[in-house]
Amino acid sequence: MATTVRNDPLRGTATIVLGFGAVALLVWALGGGSGSTVDITGKFMIAVTLVLLLSQLCGRAVRLLRQPPVVGEVLGGLLLGPSVLGLLAPSVQEWLFPAPVKSAVQLTAQLGLVAFIFLLGWEQDVRDLRSSGRAATVVAATCLVIPFGSGLLIGVPLMPALPTAFFLALALSITALPVLARILHDVGMAETRLGRISVSAAVLDDAACWAVLAAILPFAGHHSRSPLTTLAAGVALVAVLVFLVRPLLDVMLRTAPQSAVLTVAVAGALGTAAITEMMGLHSILGAFLFGLVMPRRSVDQEATTQRIKGFTVAVLLPLFFAYIGMNTSLQSVSGQWGLLLLVLFVAIASKFVGGVLGARLAGLDWREAGILGVLMNCRGITELVVANLGLSLGLIDSTMFAILVVVALVTTALTTPALSLLTKRQEVFV
Amino acid sequence: MATTVRNDPLRGTATIVLGFGAVALLVWALGGGSGSTVDITGKFMIAVTLVLLLSQLCGRAVRLLRQPPVVGEVLGGLLLGPSVLGLLAPSVQEWLFPAPVKSAVQLTAQLGLVAFIFLLGWEQDVRDLRSSGRAATVVAATCLVIPFGSGLLIGVPLMPALPTAFFLALALSITALPVLARILHDVGMAETRLGRISVSAAVLDDAACWAVLAAILPFAGHHSRSPLTTLAAGVALVAVLVFLVRPLLDVMLRTAPQSAVLTVAVAGALGTAAITEMMGLHSILGAFLFGLVMPRRSVDQEATTQRIKGFTVAVLLPLFFAYIGMNTSLQSVSGQWGLLLLVLFVAIASKFVGGVLGARLAGLDWREAGILGVLMNCRGITELVVANLGLSLGLIDSTMFAILVVVALVTTALTTPALSLLTKRQEVFV
Repeated sequence: MATTVRNDPLRGTATIVLGFGAVALLVWALGGGSGSTVDITGKFMIAVTLVLLLSQLCGRAVRLLRQPPVVGEVLGGLLLGPSVLGLLAPSVQEWLFPAPVKSAVQLTAQLGLVAFIFLLGWEQDVRDLRSSGRAATVVAATCLVIPFGSGLLIGVPLMPALPTAFFLALALSITALPVLARILHDVGMAETRLGRISVSAAVLDDAACWAVLAAILPFAGHHSRSPLTTLAAGVALVAVLVFLVRPLLDVMLRTAPQSAVLTVAVAGALGTAAITEMMGLHSILGAFLFGLVMPRRSVDQEATTQRIKGFTVAVLLPLFFAYIGMNTSLQSVSGQWGLLLLVLFVAIASKFVGGVLGARLAGLDWREAGILGVLMNCRGITELVVANLGLSLGLIDSTMFAILVVVALVTTALTTPALSLLTKRQEVFV
Repeated sequence: MATTVRNDPLRGTATIVLGFGAVALLVWALGGGSGSTVDITGKFMIAVTLVLLLSQLCGRAVRLLRQPPVVGEVLGGLLLGPSVLGLLAPSVQEWLFPAPVKSAVQLTAQLGLVAFIFLLGWEQDVRDLRSSGRAATVVAATCLVIPFGSGLLIGVPLMPALPTAFFLALALSITALPVLARILHDVGMAETRLGRISVSAAVLDDAACWAVLAAILPFAGHHSRSPLTTLAAGVALVAVLVFLVRPLLDVMLRTAPQSAVLTVAVAGALGTAAITEMMGLHSILGAFLFGLVMPRRSVDQEATTQRIKGFTVAVLLPLFFAYIGMNTSLQSVSGQWGLLLLVLFVAIASKFVGGVLGARLAGLDWREAGILGVLMNCRGITELVVANLGLSLGLIDSTMFAILVVVALVTTALTTPALSLLTKRQEVFV
């Protein structure tokens, strides 16, 4: 029996490796031979297959290093981009991801991202926060103010304009709720007091970050409208969503069949995302907003979430990581090591100090404060989403984008080892 | 209480109508005003939102006419294509679906189609068929041979070449398993003897149709390889899948976590689809094949299926119907009414005669035989998949494609009314 259990991850991994090898062989044979005869549909299917297998493989590989899967999935995306595949075999990368395939990967990933961010918003029930108490509020406040202030301190001299400095400060203030929740669950801390405080603080931080982002973007974009018009339109949109859409949905979805709830959820998230995108804000904000106003108690939230999440997390998010990887050139960081180390140090130190300070102010002891400082540092996928937003709006250049991808990876990868150092827990991700 | 129940479908429908109106208003305002400033990502999100809402709306509307949702969803797709929107407001259609958006819709729909067809194959457990007995086998045989023979009779004089005549005959021999199962469930016949016979016969017919298709395609494509090479490669692929991939997956997935099973399922289906596509067969065949060899008993098939199906059926299949609609020009049928009526008559009559004859041979009475003749006529989504395959491979022209879309719609729409006439059941789709 023990043998069977020990074999489990190996067996699954072996399957993935074999599948990966088979596809690689196929691509190699076809790429060398009659490569040009494969049409876009065929290449798109090959590309998605590769991304899925590589993502699953890397996700499993990093579990041996006691890391959450997302670290490996992001690494898998980097492998497919200019940092590795484009460097080692540019012709293969060219063949696998011609412009139309890259564009289709981006748009499909966009669907998944909107659905994922919508779920983040939907799962944030403001009423649940009231019970999390003073400790979470204090930790959230210090974990937002100290990294944001530190970010501004380095951002103002480093970045070309004030809005972009604010954006960098914001990017350093993020805590990734979904990855944090996953790590807490995996190390068995989800139901502890510290776990609950950190999740509540991350929820508050996330909400505050999106609000700050919505306030920054009108001043930072290249669009023709004035910032005040965009802000006013944003406020009007929030008012319409809260006072018109939410009550309507609440009444109307109360007795709707589940398929209708699913369609309304996805279509509503996409529609609101399109509206904010056209306003000069970003699609992500619209998806998050619609998630906040989508009714919770009156519909079968659990079943709908599972149906959206299953396909989104397994198939569409790996495409997003691959897209991130294709836009990340780690080479652009070389010669900028000082900048990388500075941003990385400020990101980690400011969040750690914020977490420790908040915890001490809330009356926790030093060890608990240290654990909270570690937990709040986990930036994961949310950092990637914000960095991608900044790159697509021209707020950061490709060097700063690559640096933020490294920050996301390093701060997430540090969480579990630092945690086990402080808690003496030895759980492994399986 | 009765009022609440009566309001259910109306409330949900009202939500959809409102959402649809809001998006339409938005599109109109932006299209008229600053239309050109919306980027492809924004347009893609608007297009998907529209497709989802329209599909849900039409799916609900046809339920008032006691039709399964798929009839409305296909009609919704037709509304967005050249048949309606392109005719009434070509500039709106142009604005909504520029070439890159159309291409992204096609590729995203392709993902959904591969996942859907994979599930069809996965759900076909050959061992279950043994219990369905002689009646199903006889009905399947007559329901395949008579429509196929009749199809050849009109196909040989009508179509330009022998392989295309075979293709038309095949297209008339299809019974849509998923739609049939849905209708049986909705009218409460799923657990009856007649219901089980019709489902088993449809499973056998489907499998036979895919096999015939695989045998026809090598002779019909435009690819450079000889038909025999393609056939040999196809046989080799089946051998590798059955004797190598299936046992490997069976051992390796036995203890894999569910996320790995989901990834292997989707990646395997896409990979095999890409292989058959490049062989000169069609991606659909690869997806179906991989579904057949994917292990059933050793993994959590039910949970994995639900996670794939939820998103696929609600979000990706409507995109497929929209893509079908965008390629269907009902105008091309005008002037060809004789051809349309001929194909429609042969499709309905031959399948009905096949069903009745098979049922009588199996010892059922005339009324039961009539019901089976009606049930086997339901062609639904499978007909659309095959027609789309024929169009993309150049086996049929756009006129015959439009005719087959009409055949799919009419034969599916006839099933429930004809059934209630024969069974005196008065169930309504809710």
